[in-house]
Amino acid sequence: MEHLEQHERMEMWEKIEQALVNEQIDQFRAEFLELHPYDQAKIFEEQEEQIRFLIYSYLSPEEMADVIEQVDEDLVTDFITEMVPGFAAKILEHMSTDDAVDLLNELDKNKVASFLTIMDKKSSAEIKELLHYEEKTAGSIMTTEYVVITTKMTVKDAMRHLRKEAPDAETIYYIYVVDSFKKLVGVISLRDLIIAEGDWLIQDVMSDRVVSVPVGEDQEDIAKMMRDYDFLALPVIDFQEHLLGIITVDDIMDVMEEEASDDYSKLAGISDVESSGSTALASAKKRLPWLILLLYLGMITASVIQRFQDSLEEVAVLAIFIPVIGGMAGNTGTQALAVAVRSISTGESEKRGKVSLIWNETKTGLLTGVTCGVLITLTVMLWQQNIYLGLLVGVAIMATLLVATVSGAIIPLIMHRLNIDPAVASGPFITTLNDLISTVIYFGLATTFLSYLV
Amino acid sequence: MEHLEQHERMEMWEKIEQALVNEQIDQFRAEFLELHPYDQAKIFEEQEEQIRFLIYSYLSPEEMADVIEQVDEDLVTDFITEMVPGFAAKILEHMSTDDAVDLLNELDKNKVASFLTIMDKKSSAEIKELLHYEEKTAGSIMTTEYVVITTKMTVKDAMRHLRKEAPDAETIYYIYVVDSFKKLVGVISLRDLIIAEGDWLIQDVMSDRVVSVPVGEDQEDIAKMMRDYDFLALPVIDFQEHLLGIITVDDIMDVMEEEASDDYSKLAGISDVESSGSTALASAKKRLPWLILLLYLGMITASVIQRFQDSLEEVAVLAIFIPVIGGMAGNTGTQALAVAVRSISTGESEKRGKVSLIWNETKTGLLTGVTCGVLITLTVMLWQQNIYLGLLVGVAIMATLLVATVSGAIIPLIMHRLNIDPAVASGPFITTLNDLISTVIYFGLATTFLSYLV
Repeated sequence: MEHLEQHERMEMWEKIEQALVNEQIDQFRAEFLELHPYDQAKIFEEQEEQIRFLIYSYLSPEEMADVIEQVDEDLVTDFITEMVPGFAAKILEHMSTDDAVDLLNELDKNKVASFLTIMDKKSSAEIKELLHYEEKTAGSIMTTEYVVITTKMTVKDAMRHLRKEAPDAETIYYIYVVDSFKKLVGVISLRDLIIAEGDWLIQDVMSDRVVSVPVGEDQEDIAKMMRDYDFLALPVIDFQEHLLGIITVDDIMDVMEEEASDDYSKLAGISDVESSGSTALASAKKRLPWLILLLYLGMITASVIQRFQDSLEEVAVLAIFIPVIGGMAGNTGTQALAVAVRSISTGESEKRGKVSLIWNETKTGLLTGVTCGVLITLTVMLWQQNIYLGLLVGVAIMATLLVATVSGAIIPLIMHRLNIDPAVASGPFITTLNDLISTVIYFGLATTFLSYLV
Repeated sequence: MEHLEQHERMEMWEKIEQALVNEQIDQFRAEFLELHPYDQAKIFEEQEEQIRFLIYSYLSPEEMADVIEQVDEDLVTDFITEMVPGFAAKILEHMSTDDAVDLLNELDKNKVASFLTIMDKKSSAEIKELLHYEEKTAGSIMTTEYVVITTKMTVKDAMRHLRKEAPDAETIYYIYVVDSFKKLVGVISLRDLIIAEGDWLIQDVMSDRVVSVPVGEDQEDIAKMMRDYDFLALPVIDFQEHLLGIITVDDIMDVMEEEASDDYSKLAGISDVESSGSTALASAKKRLPWLILLLYLGMITASVIQRFQDSLEEVAVLAIFIPVIGGMAGNTGTQALAVAVRSISTGESEKRGKVSLIWNETKTGLLTGVTCGVLITLTVMLWQQNIYLGLLVGVAIMATLLVATVSGAIIPLIMHRLNIDPAVASGPFITTLNDLISTVIYFGLATTFLSYLV
């Protein structure tokens, strides 16, 4: 079976839907439950309210939990709140704790409290424990459904324990080993476990070099670690090294996607690039704060030019190079910004040192500046038949590229130092700022050497 | 054990280095081989040639293969070519086939051929088979080291087979089932296998709904599939459904990082944002093609303004709003571009339809245009005490935002239709293009209504 494309899902659904509306419950269940939960969720998302309520009545909370876990995060709260609360609470009980917590984090406090009250005690206690971790930390993405064994077990005991726990555990491919104080002391992969002899002790076959993350660790750093070390899961510990939970690779893939989309959105100067199905009004609301801020930053540039109005009136041809100089400042600034933001987020800037990064961008800015400056000097000389104008525009481009490249690199580094997410210094922001700087450089030079131009 | 930060690695290394230079081989090996291969590789990368050659002589090709697999792809070819060819060939034999193929793909053809000749026949045959797959397809990222079982085996047979194959297989957590024609017919997870009874037949416990990818599938689509379905591995098949290899989640995490970095770089108008340790000259070389292209695109804008020189000379104040109008066009275009590129790469544009996406951006452009237009009209009226100038700038901003938003969305969609990677239409490119469009709009309007302005 190929995975299902959108249109295949719809074809498959048409068949299943007949069974549903004709109340052929068994047939509907047989067909629908054969699908991968992801496909079930994508089909479910597309349905009208009426059909959704039929599905709720034909599936058990446990079956529905598999579907809900895969539903788009923008839609899932609507579905959970439209259900009979008792049914929704049962679904939450059957979901992975980490997914249930993600969902509850999107609801308002009263709803969360009422769900927690009607849920069974064990699940609600587990969820409560996870709910208070800060967003985007290890605590907020870990799950408490993992298999744990102790050092004194034999391999055979461990396998027996594993078989019992397997159906509920998020993963059984890494098994974490704790001592009698619940301190994390080792790890063994299922691969190593199945090739070990049955009567060996776990403490003799486990690896005691277990890599773990503290519960407050940032999710982006965890993703990098998991990718570097090729782990399928990572244990989360408190400051006394007690095992609190595990983070699995499937959740980390979602984190990677989220972080990449986040960086990308910020480079484009937009709060969230990927809200599916958003209306034009919602899109406009998200973009307008940035646009209005940039509009008034642009007005500062306008007022700067007005101060040079005299030069402009004397040499009107100066105006025609305003866009190219401002544009180049923006372009090179965005390039330098992207390099700096990435080298911060990959840890490269720590490794090479910030000074080295800035120095490197300075040299790069000088090289690109001189190249473009010479090109533009020659071009303008030939085009406008004016040596001094050519020199002016060329020197302005050169100075602009140098300053804009350096500022594109320095600003995110300063923000990082001040603990502000450097990706907030988005492309358009840097572009507009560099527009302003370049205008000052250009008209400053032009006014100083005005006598050569008239 | 925490994972190792850069400085911890260096501290650890200082201890190990002593053993190395004092020729205490056993002590060096004991300490170095205790580390995770990723940390081994990061330490190894930092060493001088002399130390590297000591390490080559103290480690076996098999141990060295673990290190080389984790070395940065920009550095690995240098290391492999500095070794004695026979030693390098032995390392290649011991590497995962997919990693060995990645490495060989970076070497020139003569070197590849000579390595393949001195390698053992089995490894070189496996590698040759993979070398001809196109980059960034399933074939190029799959590995041939997987465990395969047949439908007629019992669970016990399968477990015995698994224990034997475990040390060499890339993963044993998904086991693929083939029929007697080597056709892929099912899959069983190790989790399900260990809870099944020993005398059951595989065909009765396996899932026959196995999701697979064709060998030519794009790696970005595979990453999306793996993330959606939460798989740890995916089987790769040919057009007759023969099993050719598997793709594991650790490689997919690298693909996700690569693709995200790629999209990010292109949005910033730079060919590769993340080449670690590149010199200023190398950076300048990478950025200059874009910058020079944009420079001459900017000169077109300059020549457009020159055509309106008469208007400019009559109403010099017009010049001061050139940057803000061009800037806003660039900003909104970049936002729309980012949304379109992401919706193409996530498949959202297919789902909602391109027309709906463009229509949505049109409405968004209208809303942002009217809002910013009204604001700027009022601001300019108050500032310049000139109603007509306020109206001119306001209407120009409005028209510009509308057109720039729509073009930011349409251009990547057209490129996608023409099978050009839409991410090539980078932010700076769209920005510069929109700069040009906005200039025409602004001066066109100004010239038409010039009599009101003088």
